[in-house]
Amino acid sequence: MVIIMNIDATEKDISEVVNTVEETGLQAKIMEGAQQKIVGVIGDKTKLASVAIEAMNGVENIVAISKSYKLASREFHPQSTVIDIGGVKIGGAEPVIMAGPCAVESREQLLMTAEIVKKGGAQFLRGGAYKPRTSPYSFQGLEVEGLKYLAEAREKTGLKIITEVTTVEGIAPVAEYSDVMQIGARNMQNFGLLKEVGKCGKPVMLKRGLSATIDEWLNAAEYIMNAGTPDVILCERGIRTYETYTRNTLDLSAVAAVKHLSHLPIIVDPSHGTGKWRMIKPMALAAIAAGADGLMMEVHPNPAKAMSDGSQSLTGEHYLDLMEGVRKLSKFMRDENLAPLVA
Amino acid sequence: MVIIMNIDATEKDISEVVNTVEETGLQAKIMEGAQQKIVGVIGDKTKLASVAIEAMNGVENIVAISKSYKLASREFHPQSTVIDIGGVKIGGAEPVIMAGPCAVESREQLLMTAEIVKKGGAQFLRGGAYKPRTSPYSFQGLEVEGLKYLAEAREKTGLKIITEVTTVEGIAPVAEYSDVMQIGARNMQNFGLLKEVGKCGKPVMLKRGLSATIDEWLNAAEYIMNAGTPDVILCERGIRTYETYTRNTLDLSAVAAVKHLSHLPIIVDPSHGTGKWRMIKPMALAAIAAGADGLMMEVHPNPAKAMSDGSQSLTGEHYLDLMEGVRKLSKFMRDENLAPLVA
Amino acid sequence: MVIIMNIDATEKDISEVVNTVEETGLQAKIMEGAQQKIVGVIGDKTKLASVAIEAMNGVENIVAISKSYKLASREFHPQSTVIDIGGVKIGGAEPVIMAGPCAVESREQLLMTAEIVKKGGAQFLRGGAYKPRTSPYSFQGLEVEGLKYLAEAREKTGLKIITEVTTVEGIAPVAEYSDVMQIGARNMQNFGLLKEVGKCGKPVMLKRGLSATIDEWLNAAEYIMNAGTPDVILCERGIRTYETYTRNTLDLSAVAAVKHLSHLPIIVDPSHGTGKWRMIKPMALAAIAAGADGLMMEVHPNPAKAMSDGSQSLTGEHYLDLMEGVRKLSKFMRDENLAPLVA
Amino acid sequence: MVIIMNIDATEKDISEVVNTVEETGLQAKIMEGAQQKIVGVIGDKTKLASVAIEAMNGVENIVAISKSYKLASREFHPQSTVIDIGGVKIGGAEPVIMAGPCAVESREQLLMTAEIVKKGGAQFLRGGAYKPRTSPYSFQGLEVEGLKYLAEAREKTGLKIITEVTTVEGIAPVAEYSDVMQIGARNMQNFGLLKEVGKCGKPVMLKRGLSATIDEWLNAAEYIMNAGTPDVILCERGIRTYETYTRNTLDLSAVAAVKHLSHLPIIVDPSHGTGKWRMIKPMALAAIAAGADGLMMEVHPNPAKAMSDGSQSLTGEHYLDLMEGVRKLSKFMRDENLAPLVA
Repeated sequence: MVIIMNIDATEKDISEVVNTVEETGLQAKIMEGAQQKIVGVIGDKTKLASVAIEAMNGVENIVAISKSYKLASREFHPQSTVIDIGGVKIGGAEPVIMAGPCAVESREQLLMTAEIVKKGGAQFLRGGAYKPRTSPYSFQGLEVEGLKYLAEAREKTGLKIITEVTTVEGIAPVAEYSDVMQIGARNMQNFGLLKEVGKCGKPVMLKRGLSATIDEWLNAAEYIMNAGTPDVILCERGIRTYETYTRNTLDLSAVAAVKHLSHLPIIVDPSHGTGKWRMIKPMALAAIAAGADGLMMEVHPNPAKAMSDGSQSLTGEHYLDLMEGVRKLSKFMRDENLAPLVA
Repeated sequence: MVIIMNIDATEKDISEVVNTVEETGLQAKIMEGAQQKIVGVIGDKTKLASVAIEAMNGVENIVAISKSYKLASREFHPQSTVIDIGGVKIGGAEPVIMAGPCAVESREQLLMTAEIVKKGGAQFLRGGAYKPRTSPYSFQGLEVEGLKYLAEAREKTGLKIITEVTTVEGIAPVAEYSDVMQIGARNMQNFGLLKEVGKCGKPVMLKRGLSATIDEWLNAAEYIMNAGTPDVILCERGIRTYETYTRNTLDLSAVAAVKHLSHLPIIVDPSHGTGKWRMIKPMALAAIAAGADGLMMEVHPNPAKAMSDGSQSLTGEHYLDLMEGVRKLSKFMRDENLAPLVA
Repeated sequence: MVIIMNIDATEKDISEVVNTVEETGLQAKIMEGAQQKIVGVIGDKTKLASVAIEAMNGVENIVAISKSYKLASREFHPQSTVIDIGGVKIGGAEPVIMAGPCAVESREQLLMTAEIVKKGGAQFLRGGAYKPRTSPYSFQGLEVEGLKYLAEAREKTGLKIITEVTTVEGIAPVAEYSDVMQIGARNMQNFGLLKEVGKCGKPVMLKRGLSATIDEWLNAAEYIMNAGTPDVILCERGIRTYETYTRNTLDLSAVAAVKHLSHLPIIVDPSHGTGKWRMIKPMALAAIAAGADGLMMEVHPNPAKAMSDGSQSLTGEHYLDLMEGVRKLSKFMRDENLAPLVA
Repeated sequence: MVIIMNIDATEKDISEVVNTVEETGLQAKIMEGAQQKIVGVIGDKTKLASVAIEAMNGVENIVAISKSYKLASREFHPQSTVIDIGGVKIGGAEPVIMAGPCAVESREQLLMTAEIVKKGGAQFLRGGAYKPRTSPYSFQGLEVEGLKYLAEAREKTGLKIITEVTTVEGIAPVAEYSDVMQIGARNMQNFGLLKEVGKCGKPVMLKRGLSATIDEWLNAAEYIMNAGTPDVILCERGIRTYETYTRNTLDLSAVAAVKHLSHLPIIVDPSHGTGKWRMIKPMALAAIAAGADGLMMEVHPNPAKAMSDGSQSLTGEHYLDLMEGVRKLSKFMRDENLAPLVA
């Protein structure tokens, strides 16, 4: 941590800053700049959690040097994490595909979609039983009934299940019926939920918040890991920008950034990332080329009748075409050794 | 709702859209444009929640006309809401001031701050007992112990208490010890929490999410109101933008927007909105001039020792000076009848 | 400047960084952190303009300490600048008001508006003769003919003239017919234009770019000042965010920020800042309360017939009402000594 | 265009809106909604350029239906444009690569880089002779001297030249020495420059503005095309967001969006898009997989000595490796017919 002093900070200001740092057991070193002094702080900065250096007289700014997350950091865990879920490896050589409807709407809809998803070669069936919706008057999900249909679809197809958990009370049923629990973008900093989900021990997929920085996202993963679950999968799903043509702006550079900063696997959701079914295939291929460990996509047998997010769902036909392309491209990337190195 | 068809949509595409709309019991009217057709939908659009028109062939885009919130809307409730909390009126002629430390750190710190807050003339003491923090290694709050100190401070000073609730389990204790429950920015779309808080019936202050649109914010208020609590106070606390000099970008135009769109009172938090104590006074005065119903501010007897957000806390001296200015300005605004009319 | 090394940077990496810095004549000091080393750079960092330290092996990140602008900085010019334009003082005790139509549309429209503007008590008439428009098919301005109408309006009313210059060829005529030349938001980083305008010596009002940081904005002012014009007025006019209810998000905290970082006067444009005439009055009052040195507003005798930006123009009646409020409020701010101190 | 009336708009308000529309020669149709009326406008909306419907009484909002650009639109020009520059086809089957230093720094640097660029298989050499820089104290380019070095490098290597034009005066020399003129992000809405460049007739590459919407970008292309130059190449180079880890957020979904909305070719600049050399290769591969027509990249023989943007420049070695990957991937995309269809 580096403390930047004002150009007109007094000697007294500086010595008070130094004393405050040293009282916490850390070391402080003064460096004379051309115009102003800076104070370097050496040691574990969490010791400074109880001190607001920024509010001291003569302090212009504080610059963090080391990251505040550890368990999620590649610095402390150089080898990439591979999560094995009943034989399906996330973060391994082959991309993992999670597909299905945005929401579980009925037994028929889900089972029909599951067959298509299976046929295309995905390993996971997705589908929301608890739906966070902007308006209280939109469809909120079938809840436990929906979870049971997911379990039935697993039984019939052998697909693994990933589904969203939105409340602490929902953890037990979601954990019971799913293979991976998903934390949605709106709950990325619902810290109460993160801690409880982390205690559960089951693998968790953590979507990036609507306007979360990569640093905040990795800190959110740290909450889950610190609570006891090492198996966290990150999911880029687009961030909020000023652009209105797309629902969100899919940040594929986050794949490369996360691969550098963290050892955790990262998958990409081009359905939410774009909000337009026409854009899903090019963005899915781009995600694979960028080095993503997998994809999450919305598929619906009849998107125009979908109870949520129909415009961003693939029909069965489009999905099967896309999966063929993804399979070929990911094989090509491996064969040609084009996957990005972690530098 | 208006459905915009592609320039090359076929007659069949259009008639399928019309049929789909009419199957839900709504009316559809086709309008011929110069280049493309549009289909107007007449009636309660929540009936369309289960249909994804956007995914139908030939559909370019959908434009919402009416708002999706009702209870929070001024259209359906033209008169401004005034919330009476034990004699303190929020949304009335005089601004309501909520001040105190970011976090309750100790009994001494809280009681000392409460005295200052009282002296300055605020009606509410704020202070977090449950703290949502980006890193799991930062101070997370004193929890129930903190709530008890707040209750003690209320006893001693007569100040009302506002404090944040972050989990469903926290609702009962927070409701017991506080006068207004606060939903923080990170939980603005934690819909499970909104619904449970709304069932409680106690007044709620809902902070705007980090990157929430005004429309999403009013829909979040709708969740609480729809669950049974009419007494919702909105709080603008800055939004996330590309600017890094300030912690957030305080959107004072949201005050004028909310006054037009909703009947709910709105207060402004210039501490989180700017992240810099130097900017609190000018932004507090600006908020009052813009027509805000009150202010929430962080005050700390010794900001440099604050366990969170010290750099955006006022010292006692700065707070007393600011309060004098706010009092004078708000009296002036009333005397001169400068408060903005709702048009 | 502080250079942050990677956790696994080698001794060789560090000594190469130190050598590179020292070759430019600057001093480098190594500081040992708990996890990684940092290298402090002492001296005038413009000497490093020709070296890309960030691209050297082992370098994680670079943090700037001192600002890259000097002439615009309060650090080097502690006293606030007051610009005297024929007796009208910008940056002095009283706010300066610039009002008029978005575009000069006709002689009649301009003269009629000028009378209203004069009657309300503004000191400047604004009106665009050269209009930067998103579409090439929108009205582009009357050009020199428009400038002549502005000069005629000055003759008739005694108002000073401010109008936008959009091209280098336009500088001579705009300089001839106006008192202050305006650089619009879209040209804030049109550096060729900034340099030529700066050579002209005439006062310049520099609008903040659509998504410019405060730092970039002050650097743009530095271009003009460095070319020879000390009289630069800054104008906050809203920044681009994800919010769509308002045309832009008016960043009133920029007023407080600029007052701290720079000695230049700053005025606020609530018309472009909000894009909605209903919001102009509350935002104008808020700007004055925040300490702005003036306001720029659009007024049109018949907004519904305006050739551009009609929805954000005040009618004459609304303008006169607003001006009365602004006058009262700014007098009150001075009388009560509520204007923010520069700290 | 659809005009949405307020819920409390009067009959008189509505008939005035209808009259105003009809006075311009357009048709207006009233549609009765459940809560409010809307007025559809039929015909060429540029006729409404001189009327501000939004400012009329009772008008809540205006929604554009048709786009304001025509020449750049795929609706009016369904076939993709291929631009032939001395035999190099932009927008054809093979991607076009433009590589070179950010700035031309010296004859030696440029010629050395040109050899590397040629060896890697790029068709274009890039290099700025006029550099728009945030600070006036940063290196501003070698100007005409730089252009001559570019011409010499073309002579020696056979590479085509692309270089940025920043001022109207610069058009003649840049047109003389280059094959494609580049408009940089900061000048995307420098309309005076766009019009003059468009008169020149030479192919132009138009970078997306720092915070430009896709609609604004295509309107900027329309300015150039409307002035006489049909050969416009679009270049996505990252947009400004709140994320600070990357210099910008590379919006690869813009590739798919532009392919749908426009017939113009689009290339991607992963150097400016990310600001980090480590991320260039994965983003370059992703751009190709997304369907981009080419890439623009910064290459420098010694990035650490680069006079600008060194941290985002590839070394020769990294560039050659990347080019091999791009070549293989683009061949694979063609062979497997994976390029996205325009739907």
